[in-house]
Amino acid sequence: MAISFADVQAAAGRLAGKALATPLIESPALNARVGRRVLIKPETLQRVGAFKFRGAYNRLAQLSPAELRTGVVAFSSGNHAQGVALAAQLLGAPALIVMPSDAPAVKLEATRAYGAEIRLYDRLSDDRAAIAAEIAQARGALVVPSYDDPHIIAGQGTVGLELVRQAQDLGAELDVVVTPIGGGGLMGGVATAVKALSPGTALVGAEPEGYDDTLRSLQAGRRLTLKPAVRTLCDALESPAPGELTFPILMRTLADVAVVSDAEVAEAMRVAFATLKLVVEPGGAAGLAALLAGKVKAGRDGAVGLVLSGGNVDPGVFARIIGGEA
Amino acid sequence: MAISFADVQAAAGRLAGKALATPLIESPALNARVGRRVLIKPETLQRVGAFKFRGAYNRLAQLSPAELRTGVVAFSSGNHAQGVALAAQLLGAPALIVMPSDAPAVKLEATRAYGAEIRLYDRLSDDRAAIAAEIAQARGALVVPSYDDPHIIAGQGTVGLELVRQAQDLGAELDVVVTPIGGGGLMGGVATAVKALSPGTALVGAEPEGYDDTLRSLQAGRRLTLKPAVRTLCDALESPAPGELTFPILMRTLADVAVVSDAEVAEAMRVAFATLKLVVEPGGAAGLAALLAGKVKAGRDGAVGLVLSGGNVDPGVFARIIGGEA
Repeated sequence: MAISFADVQAAAGRLAGKALATPLIESPALNARVGRRVLIKPETLQRVGAFKFRGAYNRLAQLSPAELRTGVVAFSSGNHAQGVALAAQLLGAPALIVMPSDAPAVKLEATRAYGAEIRLYDRLSDDRAAIAAEIAQARGALVVPSYDDPHIIAGQGTVGLELVRQAQDLGAELDVVVTPIGGGGLMGGVATAVKALSPGTALVGAEPEGYDDTLRSLQAGRRLTLKPAVRTLCDALESPAPGELTFPILMRTLADVAVVSDAEVAEAMRVAFATLKLVVEPGGAAGLAALLAGKVKAGRDGAVGLVLSGGNVDPGVFARIIGGEA
Repeated sequence: MAISFADVQAAAGRLAGKALATPLIESPALNARVGRRVLIKPETLQRVGAFKFRGAYNRLAQLSPAELRTGVVAFSSGNHAQGVALAAQLLGAPALIVMPSDAPAVKLEATRAYGAEIRLYDRLSDDRAAIAAEIAQARGALVVPSYDDPHIIAGQGTVGLELVRQAQDLGAELDVVVTPIGGGGLMGGVATAVKALSPGTALVGAEPEGYDDTLRSLQAGRRLTLKPAVRTLCDALESPAPGELTFPILMRTLADVAVVSDAEVAEAMRVAFATLKLVVEPGGAAGLAALLAGKVKAGRDGAVGLVLSGGNVDPGVFARIIGGEA
């Protein structure tokens, strides 16, 4: 089921007064460094510290009173977990989240703080989807996917809707919009909004090395599932394949996907700290990493719309990275 | 020479397109923690990472072509240094900044990067004002004070002008506005704007322990100069006395001054990191520290306008503080 721009607009209506309309900010120092105008959409400032609240709330707000009473189940390494937990809390629904035992502590704690029940699993040996499905069936609860759901995608699309309108308010023409890509929910929604409002704007995704499943799938013309042999700093982007719903959107809309290394991501986090004064988590900095590394090739001369998608990073990891370690 | 709201408005005109109109942001999680609505003005996102660019640019933009050619001299522990250096660079004027040898490295480097010449002095033995005056006289250059100047105060006042208007756009009533206080330039300007636009709003300053010269002066009814026996985490707020020009404004407008400890400032920096995803330097977090510590007593029920005044902090210091050390 494809989503349309009308779905994104409807999501924006549901999110009004619930999600924050994050500002569009600019740093002349970053512009000078990159050599072009960069308009930054800091979803780090969104509720739960990441864009994920938008999709989760848009999904849960459409449940019936009976469905809300039975509650929801989700599996997530952290940001979707928090998004679902907060949305469920606001709507009075019980939530159980299946999370990897090695998820960042800050994400585990926050999810718990939003009142969700947490079930840990072992990332290497357990099948989290199966665990979630089993729990959901036992409870009669609904599984809320982290990206492969039209309402989730439409909710994330409100990031793109706001970005284009805020850029227009500044009189800026967006040559290209850059977002990180995990399962493609954010980019799927953003691309839907951007192509509707500003058809000439190119879309460029950013994936971490070892998790370039979207790039490879686009090159192959079909969804490929990677068996990643490495870990990445970008815990939020460790999806092995693009989604069934997101991939066709990305096929139709993406100009390019940049693949970034851990070292490039760490450098982007340092630039965000020192120049932007923003706390950005590794996965959230993937687009900035691509831009700083000169890997955003599309639409070279005009303004870049850059989504910093999340800021949930353990203090110890952040301290290590801004201290200069990769 | 007192400043008027018209001076702040004129400064806003000069700063249009030069300084950033920083957004007014809100964190439902912080609101819940504090128990009231907090509207955050993150001057951390301002050019040079602090509000100081506003006043410096407003001052330098009023120099004659001949004065710009001769250039400017300033003394500052860091943020005013950067503000003057960037304003001078934008206006094509040479700048020499007298900085303490123990200023944060990040502030020294940034000031140099904006093209300024730097003269180091020893905080314990040298008289920086005398050094600056001597250099200025030798060069025929103008000394740009860091707070005790009507154009500097008026420039900083644009923070308050924007804050009140942005709060009005949100339909929020500001019960109280909180800013850190060093020499009083920021609060002097902010108070001038806030009292003109929203007379019922209370103003509360925040000073670090050992540098509560403004509080003591207000209590004494005259400017007192402290001989601080201690250091503070808040390098940006180490002024021993309120200014000649700023003090009368503060006398007339302030409801209260909260005094915060290093531990409270460090905790505020951790909250800014974990909850707001903002990098705030110690001095910039003094107002947030006061709020979190329950030390903002005025206007208890409505919205708080909170200025986070700067984000220039060495990575090592930041890492140590978010790692849990005070």
